[in-house]
Amino acid sequence: MRNNEEESAGAILCNRQEETQMIYLDNAATTWPKPEETIKAMEECIRNAGANPGRGGHKMSLSAGRIIFETREAIARLFNAGDPARVVFTGNATESLNLALKGILKPGDHVITSSMEHNAVARPLYVLKNRGVEVTEVPCSPQGTLDPGDIARAVKRNTKAVAVVHASNVTGAIIPVEEIGKITRERGIYFIVDAAQTAGLLDIDVEKMNIDILAFTGHKSLYGPQGTGGLYIGSGVLLEPLIQGGTGSKSESLEQPEDLPDKFESGTPNTPGIAGLGAGIRFINSKGQAWIRRHEQGLVARFLDGLEQMKKIEIYGPKDPALQVPVVSINVKGQDSSEIAFILDKVFDIACRSGLHCAPMAHKTMGTLERGTVRFSFSVFNTEAEVDRTLEALERTVAELP
Amino acid sequence: MRNNEEESAGAILCNRQEETQMIYLDNAATTWPKPEETIKAMEECIRNAGANPGRGGHKMSLSAGRIIFETREAIARLFNAGDPARVVFTGNATESLNLALKGILKPGDHVITSSMEHNAVARPLYVLKNRGVEVTEVPCSPQGTLDPGDIARAVKRNTKAVAVVHASNVTGAIIPVEEIGKITRERGIYFIVDAAQTAGLLDIDVEKMNIDILAFTGHKSLYGPQGTGGLYIGSGVLLEPLIQGGTGSKSESLEQPEDLPDKFESGTPNTPGIAGLGAGIRFINSKGQAWIRRHEQGLVARFLDGLEQMKKIEIYGPKDPALQVPVVSINVKGQDSSEIAFILDKVFDIACRSGLHCAPMAHKTMGTLERGTVRFSFSVFNTEAEVDRTLEALERTVAELP
Repeated sequence: MRNNEEESAGAILCNRQEETQMIYLDNAATTWPKPEETIKAMEECIRNAGANPGRGGHKMSLSAGRIIFETREAIARLFNAGDPARVVFTGNATESLNLALKGILKPGDHVITSSMEHNAVARPLYVLKNRGVEVTEVPCSPQGTLDPGDIARAVKRNTKAVAVVHASNVTGAIIPVEEIGKITRERGIYFIVDAAQTAGLLDIDVEKMNIDILAFTGHKSLYGPQGTGGLYIGSGVLLEPLIQGGTGSKSESLEQPEDLPDKFESGTPNTPGIAGLGAGIRFINSKGQAWIRRHEQGLVARFLDGLEQMKKIEIYGPKDPALQVPVVSINVKGQDSSEIAFILDKVFDIACRSGLHCAPMAHKTMGTLERGTVRFSFSVFNTEAEVDRTLEALERTVAELP
Repeated sequence: MRNNEEESAGAILCNRQEETQMIYLDNAATTWPKPEETIKAMEECIRNAGANPGRGGHKMSLSAGRIIFETREAIARLFNAGDPARVVFTGNATESLNLALKGILKPGDHVITSSMEHNAVARPLYVLKNRGVEVTEVPCSPQGTLDPGDIARAVKRNTKAVAVVHASNVTGAIIPVEEIGKITRERGIYFIVDAAQTAGLLDIDVEKMNIDILAFTGHKSLYGPQGTGGLYIGSGVLLEPLIQGGTGSKSESLEQPEDLPDKFESGTPNTPGIAGLGAGIRFINSKGQAWIRRHEQGLVARFLDGLEQMKKIEIYGPKDPALQVPVVSINVKGQDSSEIAFILDKVFDIACRSGLHCAPMAHKTMGTLERGTVRFSFSVFNTEAEVDRTLEALERTVAELP
């Protein structure tokens, strides 16, 4: 396939490689570049606080522990989570979501989810279904929007939790979590939110939104490094850990400690990563989350405007910067999504992503399960000039393709 | 407690703080410093290959994927693991051991372990015991040595696995894994080895030693950063994943892919950490693993010689550099282990660890469950001069304590 694409791209665009700086539009996969602060904090941590946190009483171990606590505090403040101990670190949002879903749902329980979920929710639920958990998938519109009334109507006597993505990683569509939170609170159901695409970008207030578990990743809109993530666990949530082991606490006992965060943080944490995540959050706070959101909405608006003027382009999602995160999925009529992404990368040095984006349920909802989409996603570091160059590149690609 | 210690240390040593460089002897918790190569590789990865590996076809995503593959290959070579796909990355050895134990052992199965295990093995086994897995704990000597014959004698009809630590994190005692591997291979039992204290330091050949699952951490003797670890999974091993989610592969399916390593690597990996781990292994290879081992044995020999001349010191473990990793546990007669560690840190700027070291089973075996031990552990960066200064500091501390 790659060979065919290479030939095709070659035939069409004469193997010419534009001499320009790379444009990175794959920020929904991971943000790049990272703020200088993030990189510096990691190096500083390894050099000067490189001991094992919480596993020794010496000065350097305490310094490492302090870095982790400060990041925990910054996250608690960001999500209005109250007690920082309720913020638990994991390796990524997928681990957080597995912990949440498997730690709560037992055979006989019923869970409600949406038809726009990433495999980080869909695959664990598939496993749980085979273990006797009942799963209802509430359909979203092809744009990826969800009617909270459909959630309310799906509630049954054995419904234990609602688990939904805060914003789709394919269409960018934002799910009305605040309205869903009202429904779950009223019915006494746990509310689990996958904030992989929204943490650091949209306002998230776990109190106001009645979120019981918020799963986040550190390396996207929180501007931390890969290898970081975590979850907020509400005070009323009874959750079993996925992993037991050394916690540096209650070491005399073979039983996992019940105290948070230790109950869910066995083994040595990713201290330099967490240092970088802390710096990422300080970076967001210094720019202002609202400013970042406005900047990215401006880029999405400009990109959507340009796309709408191109005949052969199909745009997915809400097509409204206010209703979506800075993720735009498209297809070129009659073309394979991977061929378009390949040409953009090879000829124009524009990095985007094609295919199914680890979310087959979402693609089924959108009607793109066969061909996938070409996805462009922006960060605070992207510029209007980059949007314009990308539109121009798309225009030229579309014009020259058969 | 801390306050009392502070007073006591103050009273004895007159609050004098020696003006010296810190001596870091807590390398069994995490090695420090890290090689320059490790830090540079992480920064280089974030700056120049900071995309999401395996989740896009663009050039930077491929660069990130290449870094991960190269580290996988380096680890496979180090352990003679054959196919690099059989090396799977996790966040730490604890996660690896949970995956191994919970992925293999089902109710009704029998597992044999030792009485020197870390909580990374002991706590998951405690959970499995409550789920109906039968656990036999083969007693070790108070020095932490184990007779392989005791393993053979513990095998029953329903024995599914033997899970042991390769070297104790408390006494440093090396367990004869090659002999145990012969027993498990003969009986058709899975052999799971916790190499947290040995990977990168002792020769490990999974073929020769008949190891089915080798769990390792990246941030100790492999000289990578915290947040890295993994496991080797032998080709005959039927293992269920602990975590399901996006793998960047077979995205159309809700079923977790069966191919390795994807089956066990859901969600975005710690790419910069894995880049650092790869550099750590290159550092080991450039120094020579045998040279590092000899250097550290020399430090242990010098330290043991010095300790043996001090009257009030009790030394645990084999007291033979050939039979242990560079970990030495002691106590000062009549003194609390945490008080000694506190004085060493505060007065002499020597970082070591006191207490139970996340291994209550080991302390029970050693008879130190009440008071713990003071643990000193060395890395390639420690020197003979540091050993001498530590001995001198201990001598002065012991002399001045009541």
